[in-house]
Amino acid sequence: MTANWYLDTYGTYLRAIEQHLHALCSTAPDVAPLYRQMVWHHFAWDVNDVTSNDFDLTLINGKRSRPLMTLLVADAICGAHDRAMSAAAAVELVHNFTLVHDDVMDVSDTRRGRITVWKKWNISQAINAGDGMYTWAIRALTTIAPNKIADAVAVLMDACLATVQGQVLDIGFEERMDVTADEYLVMIYNKSGALIEGSARLGALLSTDDTATVDAYGEFAKNLGIAFQIQDDYLGVWGDEALTGKSATSDIEGKKKSFPVLIALDEATEADKATLTTIYEKDVLSKADVQTVLDILDKVDAKERTHQLTNEFYEKSLAALNSVPTGDKNHDGLLGLANFLIKRDY
Amino acid sequence: MTANWYLDTYGTYLRAIEQHLHALCSTAPDVAPLYRQMVWHHFAWDVNDVTSNDFDLTLINGKRSRPLMTLLVADAICGAHDRAMSAAAAVELVHNFTLVHDDVMDVSDTRRGRITVWKKWNISQAINAGDGMYTWAIRALTTIAPNKIADAVAVLMDACLATVQGQVLDIGFEERMDVTADEYLVMIYNKSGALIEGSARLGALLSTDDTATVDAYGEFAKNLGIAFQIQDDYLGVWGDEALTGKSATSDIEGKKKSFPVLIALDEATEADKATLTTIYEKDVLSKADVQTVLDILDKVDAKERTHQLTNEFYEKSLAALNSVPTGDKNHDGLLGLANFLIKRDY
Repeated sequence: MTANWYLDTYGTYLRAIEQHLHALCSTAPDVAPLYRQMVWHHFAWDVNDVTSNDFDLTLINGKRSRPLMTLLVADAICGAHDRAMSAAAAVELVHNFTLVHDDVMDVSDTRRGRITVWKKWNISQAINAGDGMYTWAIRALTTIAPNKIADAVAVLMDACLATVQGQVLDIGFEERMDVTADEYLVMIYNKSGALIEGSARLGALLSTDDTATVDAYGEFAKNLGIAFQIQDDYLGVWGDEALTGKSATSDIEGKKKSFPVLIALDEATEADKATLTTIYEKDVLSKADVQTVLDILDKVDAKERTHQLTNEFYEKSLAALNSVPTGDKNHDGLLGLANFLIKRDY
Repeated sequence: MTANWYLDTYGTYLRAIEQHLHALCSTAPDVAPLYRQMVWHHFAWDVNDVTSNDFDLTLINGKRSRPLMTLLVADAICGAHDRAMSAAAAVELVHNFTLVHDDVMDVSDTRRGRITVWKKWNISQAINAGDGMYTWAIRALTTIAPNKIADAVAVLMDACLATVQGQVLDIGFEERMDVTADEYLVMIYNKSGALIEGSARLGALLSTDDTATVDAYGEFAKNLGIAFQIQDDYLGVWGDEALTGKSATSDIEGKKKSFPVLIALDEATEADKATLTTIYEKDVLSKADVQTVLDILDKVDAKERTHQLTNEFYEKSLAALNSVPTGDKNHDGLLGLANFLIKRDY
């Protein structure tokens, strides 16, 4: 599953999503020109003219996996995803509003090779840019079928409050050394799983009135989102440097309290826990420190257990997809997306 | 028009608003306890048990003029404001989400005598708190009459994007000495007028299908909001210290580029403009500096002109109220609110 495979397989969807997203943002009143500049910079539309029908898909600065989820679910249920296009744009805008705010919180200078909004302008304007993108996301839902708007807004807002509260937990975890694996799973479900779950639910609820069907696709996406995050933790410690494009042990160097480290903090010997805590209190880690951490992770079998947990949620995800009621749905697109997100080695 | 008069006259509304707001926020899932703590702190619900039916109205930490606008418009049109209560809660939550974010941008340590969210916790968590409050505001609109939801969400989102873009302009103005009075009026309409206009529009659209009526109440509130902001600029320079509770010239001391100063920067002699610019580039202003600014303002008749402009928008506001079509509406409540907001001397 390569990035090229992804663009080849889903290119038609990705093109439509990007153009809809661009058209939607273009309808926002242009009161403060800087607002539009910030949004265009964030989406890299200043260097990628997506209004041209043969624009370069590789310049899209993100996977767009959430809106793709929305459209693929709609396609699977009713064979027509047009009715879900505004909701797809909404979830992508929500995701990007959180990225703009998260970059402020994480003091991140770059995102996908471009300078972040707060770094290019300032923190105040980045908060404003995010607030505006969030606003326009919700505005997009007013164009869907009138009898579905209340449910759609509720689904998106529930997902958003989960995302925000997940972020509250995540920021709070930075100051703690006693976070449990269970707390961590609650955090990643809320911070990352809830919005991809909401993306699937929106695609489903715009395509059917059957709540069991909506729930099944929601479960599929929720577990996929959790699996993806745990996989991300795995790759941050044991990823292939040549494929991920960043140091194999980047999460250790960044002292990220990811899932493998939490296992060690919970289950390592008292001596190893003390060593780990001491290392994580340093400003900068040496190569020897990183190796020490890796050795401690080995002792609690963290690599295999992280891999297993990813698979556990991935299997749950596929089981939920198989449980979708009422007949022969074509799930090739969704299975391809799931496979791409989890079986990636980059 | 005193604060006591306001509480006596609108107490029943204010009590209902506060209880609805509290009940609404209480339904948010309690994933991250800190999220709720921050919201409760911001609304001062940690020191004011608003679930008690005889809670102290003076402890409400704000005028709640936006939700009051929503309810009074609904009452004027149909004599029943219950249908607009969720929308009222929504506009107040939106207003407060912007306050929490603005306090970050303005580096404000206190708000209404309480420590601000970012100061008590940190910037990251304050951004999260604001994002969550915004989310829950919109969630509130899903409970209104289904056939009105699309329009209501659109009205609120248009108001929110205006508010955000007004804030983008305001932050940008801080770095400029060449802001014109016209640009300033665009900024205050967007930053402050749009949400109070949206508050009136929501109350109206939930009470009637007549768009001319909705527009008329919208115009009333929009012009009232602009008048209020210009009046605020007046009081920041020439207010009665004993009544406002802050230094009469606080806006000069804070080097705020408020409307009176913009008149001077636009119309004073070149020598006076240079003096003004030099003073506004200082870190701290002396008493002599403040007096020099006041003298320059006097020369361009800024006091009288600011007062006149307030009255101009106030008159437009009342004219819009008089233009409401279809008969005998009781506008006593709305006129009282308008009078209270503009004729205040504190």
